Amino acid sequence: MSATPTTRLYELALANGIQPSPFVWRIRFALAHKQVPYEGVPMGFTDIPRVVGPTFRLVPVLEDHKGRRGESWEIVEHLDQEYPQHPLFSSPAEKALARFVDAWITWEIMPRFFSLYALDLHNAARPGDQAYYRSSREGPRTHGKTLEDFTAGREQRLPEVRAALLPLRQHLVHHAFLHGNVPGYADYIALGAFLWAASAATLPLLTPDDPIKDWLERGRDLHGGVARDPRLKPLW
Amino acid sequence: MSATPTTRLYELALANGIQPSPFVWRIRFALAHKQVPYEGVPMGFTDIPRVVGPTFRLVPVLEDHKGRRGESWEIVEHLDQEYPQHPLFSSPAEKALARFVDAWITWEIMPRFFSLYALDLHNAARPGDQAYYRSSREGPRTHGKTLEDFTAGREQRLPEVRAALLPLRQHLVHHAFLHGNVPGYADYIALGAFLWAASAATLPLLTPDDPIKDWLERGRDLHGGVARDPRLKPLW
Repeated sequence: MSATPTTRLYELALANGIQPSPFVWRIRFALAHKQVPYEGVPMGFTDIPRVVGPTFRLVPVLEDHKGRRGESWEIVEHLDQEYPQHPLFSSPAEKALARFVDAWITWEIMPRFFSLYALDLHNAARPGDQAYYRSSREGPRTHGKTLEDFTAGREQRLPEVRAALLPLRQHLVHHAFLHGNVPGYADYIALGAFLWAASAATLPLLTPDDPIKDWLERGRDLHGGVARDPRLKPLW
Repeated sequence: MSATPTTRLYELALANGIQPSPFVWRIRFALAHKQVPYEGVPMGFTDIPRVVGPTFRLVPVLEDHKGRRGESWEIVEHLDQEYPQHPLFSSPAEKALARFVDAWITWEIMPRFFSLYALDLHNAARPGDQAYYRSSREGPRTHGKTLEDFTAGREQRLPEVRAALLPLRQHLVHHAFLHGNVPGYADYIALGAFLWAASAATLPLLTPDDPIKDWLERGRDLHGGVARDPRLKPLW
């Protein structure tokens, strides 16, 4: 009766079972980093309110002895407070700088990945989720276009998307990870964006000589290979 | 005879005496942060080998009891080793993440500022430096164009340059500085780029409602107003 409640992470799932959400990936890595055991609860996009609760429309949602909470930064703050082992940040400055990496990934990189893979993600979603995915994405995020028109000619945009990754590429001249010799939450943020792309990509993102490839391989090996899902699509 | 040798920072100077180099600004802030007293030695672009020594072609160069050294990251490493008070970084992760901000500033932001202000910087240089400035900048950095042709129509590029600053703007929703509540070396890196622009700008960079403005004002007030030079041009 007094068993510790199971820690659960509510996640997304595509038709083949793979988890696409870049924000869920952040929390998966964070839990693995902190060695907090948890149970993943996968669901389709349209199942969230029914499964997680009517106040939730997005995942990740973390459930533990303190209840359920969403929003990845709130979850991360909670994790470092409630589970002090293996802290995600050694100082407030490290956390603030990871926020800058988040801003770069979220505003510069993820929209470009979306311009390549928005239709792939639709097509990979569970059949019952595809109409929701389309209606929730088509609009401002696609400049008013259909997913098909928005992603048309994407091959021609690859050089620009690859060029936008230059700050990461230049950083990797000096360091194995964004946090230096060992990975940290900014790496998990950035890896989440690439794993989102890899969950559905039918067009390779990188050239095979891109040093980002090596960082991605190191990232997928972390914490016992938490991101070594063989269903992930190749990105080069 | 055994007095501590003066610490000197070899710097650039434009015709009106203002220091333009973004890399010198980094070290100025770092020395102020660490409360290391020093003497600034200003010079024109073409004076560097004669004043600093034939092996140096760029500033900053720091001179102290350990000799002279260039390259801003090498100087910073040296400062934290030789002057342990007020360390610039509290952890290797903080330093590595500042490197990422450096990559973003150096590869995404400074080329855009250069596309606006390359000719302004030429015109503000000492008369004897202008031919050198032109010949060393015209080429790959200007896509083979003259400074005049390279900067022509720059007003039309302002929206794109402002948009490229979005990661910094978004970060400032959460934090007063890149390092959080208190400034750190990544702030000094970013401030250096803006002060470079402000050393010669004849076109405002920002709109007056841009939150980056407030961060810049905070930055210019740091360490007793080290960047409160009244000769700096307005950026909004």
